[in-house]
Amino acid sequence: MNAPSPYVRSTARVQENGKGEVMENETGRVEAFSDGVFAIIITILVLELKVPEETGSAFWHGVREQWPHYAAYVVSFLIIGVMWVNHHTIFSHLKRVDRPLLFLNLMVLMVVSVIPYTTNVLAEHLTEGGSANPAAVLYSLVTVAYALAFLLFWWYVTRVGHLFHEQVDKDGARATRVRFGLGAIAYPCTVLLAFFSAPLTLVAHFLIAIYYAANQIPIPLVVEEERLESASDLRK
Amino acid sequence: MNAPSPYVRSTARVQENGKGEVMENETGRVEAFSDGVFAIIITILVLELKVPEETGSAFWHGVREQWPHYAAYVVSFLIIGVMWVNHHTIFSHLKRVDRPLLFLNLMVLMVVSVIPYTTNVLAEHLTEGGSANPAAVLYSLVTVAYALAFLLFWWYVTRVGHLFHEQVDKDGARATRVRFGLGAIAYPCTVLLAFFSAPLTLVAHFLIAIYYAANQIPIPLVVEEERLESASDLRK
Amino acid sequence: MNAPSPYVRSTARVQENGKGEVMENETGRVEAFSDGVFAIIITILVLELKVPEETGSAFWHGVREQWPHYAAYVVSFLIIGVMWVNHHTIFSHLKRVDRPLLFLNLMVLMVVSVIPYTTNVLAEHLTEGGSANPAAVLYSLVTVAYALAFLLFWWYVTRVGHLFHEQVDKDGARATRVRFGLGAIAYPCTVLLAFFSAPLTLVAHFLIAIYYAANQIPIPLVVEEERLESASDLRK
Amino acid sequence: MNAPSPYVRSTARVQENGKGEVMENETGRVEAFSDGVFAIIITILVLELKVPEETGSAFWHGVREQWPHYAAYVVSFLIIGVMWVNHHTIFSHLKRVDRPLLFLNLMVLMVVSVIPYTTNVLAEHLTEGGSANPAAVLYSLVTVAYALAFLLFWWYVTRVGHLFHEQVDKDGARATRVRFGLGAIAYPCTVLLAFFSAPLTLVAHFLIAIYYAANQIPIPLVVEEERLESASDLRK
Repeated sequence: MNAPSPYVRSTARVQENGKGEVMENETGRVEAFSDGVFAIIITILVLELKVPEETGSAFWHGVREQWPHYAAYVVSFLIIGVMWVNHHTIFSHLKRVDRPLLFLNLMVLMVVSVIPYTTNVLAEHLTEGGSANPAAVLYSLVTVAYALAFLLFWWYVTRVGHLFHEQVDKDGARATRVRFGLGAIAYPCTVLLAFFSAPLTLVAHFLIAIYYAANQIPIPLVVEEERLESASDLRK
Repeated sequence: MNAPSPYVRSTARVQENGKGEVMENETGRVEAFSDGVFAIIITILVLELKVPEETGSAFWHGVREQWPHYAAYVVSFLIIGVMWVNHHTIFSHLKRVDRPLLFLNLMVLMVVSVIPYTTNVLAEHLTEGGSANPAAVLYSLVTVAYALAFLLFWWYVTRVGHLFHEQVDKDGARATRVRFGLGAIAYPCTVLLAFFSAPLTLVAHFLIAIYYAANQIPIPLVVEEERLESASDLRK
Repeated sequence: MNAPSPYVRSTARVQENGKGEVMENETGRVEAFSDGVFAIIITILVLELKVPEETGSAFWHGVREQWPHYAAYVVSFLIIGVMWVNHHTIFSHLKRVDRPLLFLNLMVLMVVSVIPYTTNVLAEHLTEGGSANPAAVLYSLVTVAYALAFLLFWWYVTRVGHLFHEQVDKDGARATRVRFGLGAIAYPCTVLLAFFSAPLTLVAHFLIAIYYAANQIPIPLVVEEERLESASDLRK
Repeated sequence: MNAPSPYVRSTARVQENGKGEVMENETGRVEAFSDGVFAIIITILVLELKVPEETGSAFWHGVREQWPHYAAYVVSFLIIGVMWVNHHTIFSHLKRVDRPLLFLNLMVLMVVSVIPYTTNVLAEHLTEGGSANPAAVLYSLVTVAYALAFLLFWWYVTRVGHLFHEQVDKDGARATRVRFGLGAIAYPCTVLLAFFSAPLTLVAHFLIAIYYAANQIPIPLVVEEERLESASDLRK
C-alpha cells in the first residue's frame, strides 16, 4: 500500500480507511441537499394557491375561478416529482462526486427552483386574453433550460465515467446520451405549442410528465461476477 | 450465483454486492424526501397566521379574533402529524420501492401538500355567515382525497406484497385492507357534517386525529425463526 | 430464542435480525423529521423581514426603522437554535421511540413552529405605545408553552426510562427533572417582565438563550463495563 | 479498559461500544440540520420573484422589468451554493463536534439565512436612483459578516484541532488561516465598490462566487499509514 498524497481533494470525506470509498459518502450529502431542495420546491407550490374571497353562495364560484392555479399546481407537482425521480436515478449510479459535478448539480437545482415562480406566472395569466400565451412560453422555456442543464450534467457524468459505480457499463451509459437528448425534444415542442394555446401547453406538460414517469431510459450495468465474489470474500 | 441481467431497474441503487438488498437503500431516499415534504407542510402552516393590527388595549381583542386561524393551525398540525406517523409505519415495513410505488407516494404527498391551503381557506371563512360551510366541505374533501390516495397506496403495496420485508405476513397485511377502508369512513362523514356546522367539522377532525393517533391498525408480522437464525449465522 | 409475538408494535422498523435494535432506526427518522421542522422554522424567520421602501438618502433611515424585526430575528434564531440543541441532546440518549413519545414530540414541534408568528407579532408591535407589552407577553407565553411541552416530554422519557440507551443512568436521569423544571422558571419570569418592558423582555430572552447555550444539564450515564465488553465480543 | 466517567458530555450520542466514535454521529446530525437550512435558504430565494402584472403584448416588457430580481436570484443562488460547498468541505474533515462549535455553526447559519432578505432589498432598489448603492452596501455587508463568522468558525476548529479526523494535518490546517483570511478580503472590497455602482457590485459577487467555486483552499492531510493498517486489522 502506497502512502496517498498528503493533499487530497478537499471535498472528500476523510475516513479511517483512507481508500477509494472516501468519496462515497459525498454522494450521500449531495443527495440529501438536493432532496431537500426538491422537497421544498415541490411543497412551496401550495403557497401560490389563493384563498377565494367570495362569501356566501358565491364561495364555490370563487373556488372554481382558481382552476388555473389548481391545474398548474398539479402539473408542476408532477413535473418536479418526475425530475426528482430522474435525479435520484442518476445519483444511484454514482459512487463519487467531484467539483464540476457539484456545480452542474447546482445548475440543475437553480433551474428547478424557478418552477414555482413560472407556475405562478402561468396560473395568474392563463385566463388573460393576451398574456396567457407568453406566460406559457415562459413556463415551457424553463423546462427547456432544465433539460439542457440535465443533459449537460449527464454528458459530464458519462464523458469519462470516473464517478460511476464499478457495476455501471460506462460505454453503455455514454450511448444513452442520444436517447436522453431525443427524449428531451418534447420540451422545445411545448414552447412552440405555447404560441397557439396556453391550456394545451399545460396539458402537454402533464402528458410528458406521465410519459417520463412510466418510461425511463435505463442505465446499463455490467455486473462483473468475479469482483462481486471477491467483494463478498472480503466481508467474510 | 448466476450473473444478473445487465439491465436492472434503473431506480435501484447500485451496490458492491449486487444482491437483493440493492433496492433497500431506495426506501431510505424516498422516506427522506417524503419526510422533507411532511416537515415543510406541517411547518408552513404557521405562515398563514396573521399578525393582529390592533394596538393598545385592543391588541388582545385582535388576537382573540384570530381564533379560527389558531384552531385550524392546531387541528391541521395534528392531522398532518398523524399522516406522517402512518406514512412512516407503512414504509417501515417495506424493503423495496418500485416505479408505481414512487408515483402512488407522490400522489399521497400531492394531496397532503394541499392541506395548508384548505386550512387557510377554512380559517378565513370560519366566521363568515354563508361560506363557512362550503369552506369546511372543501377542507373535508381534501382529507377524503388523502384517504383515497392512501388506500390506493396500501392496496398496491398489499396486492402482491413483493415490496415487503420478509417478516411481514403478506396475507395478514392484505386482510387489513378492509379495516383500513372502514377506518377511513370517518372522512366522508366529516363532509356531511360540514353542511351543518363548520366549527363542529373542525372539532370532528381534531377528534379523528386523536383517535388515529391512539389506535392504529397493526400490520401483522410472521417472524420465521429459522430465517432469523440463519441470518444471524451469516453475520458471524 | 423464543418466537416473538406475530403482532409487534407497528411503528417498529422491521429488520432482518428481528432483535431489540428493531426500534433503533426509529429514532433516526423521528430525529430527521424533527430536524427538518427545526431547520424550516429557524429559516422562515427571515421571511418576516420587510424590505424598506424608502429610496435615496432615506434608505438607511428605513433600514434602521426595521430594528425591531432584526432584533427579534436574532433572538428567535438563537432561541430556536438552543431548542434544537436540547432536542438533539435528549434524542441522543434514546434508543427507541414509542407511540406516546411520537405525539409528545409532535406537541413540542407544534409549539416551536409558532415562534416565527409570535416573533413577527412582537416585531410589528415593539415600537407601538400600547401594544408592545401584550405582544411581548404573547411572545413569552409561547416560550412557557414550549417549556411545559418539553418538561412533559422529559417527564415521560424519564418516568420508566424504557426508551433510553442501556448506558443511561435511569435514576440519575429521573433526578434531573427538578433541575430541568427549575431551569425553565426563567420563562414565566419573562411573562411578568413583559408587563413592564417589551424591549427588556427581548433582551431577557437573548440572555436566557445564551445562558442555556453555555450551561446545559448533563444526563448522567452509567457505563457498565461488562456489557460493553460482551457487546464488543459479539462483534468479533 | 478504564471505566469512563459517569458524566459524559451530554451532546454525545450514546452508543453500545462507548468509545471514541461516540461523537462521530454528532457531526452527522449537525450536517443534516445545516444542510436543511442551506437547502431552505437557497430555495426560498424564488419566493421573492414577482409575477409581472402586465397583460397582452406588455407581458414580456413586464418580465424584462423584473431583471434585477432575476439577476439577484442567480447571484445569491450561486453564493449560497458555494457557501454550502465550503461548509460541507470543512465538516467532512471533522470527526466530532463540541458545544462552542455548535454555536459558531449557528452563527454562520444565522448570517446565511439573512441573504434572501438582502437579495430582495437589493433587487427592489437596484433600479432606484438614490437607494441602489446603499442597498448594495447592505448586501455586501452581509457577505462580510458571513466571512467573519466563517473565519471565526475556522479559527476555532484549527486552534486546537481536537475535532479533526486523525488524518487531518493539524499544523497544516492551522497554517491555512492566513490564506482563508486573505481569500475573504474580496468581500470588504465589494462594500467599497457598492458606493460606486450597485450593478457592478452584483457582477463582482457573481465573479467571486465563480472564483471560489473553482479555487478552494485544500485542507492538508497527513495519512499515517500505520494507523490505517492497524485500523483495518481491527476490522478483520
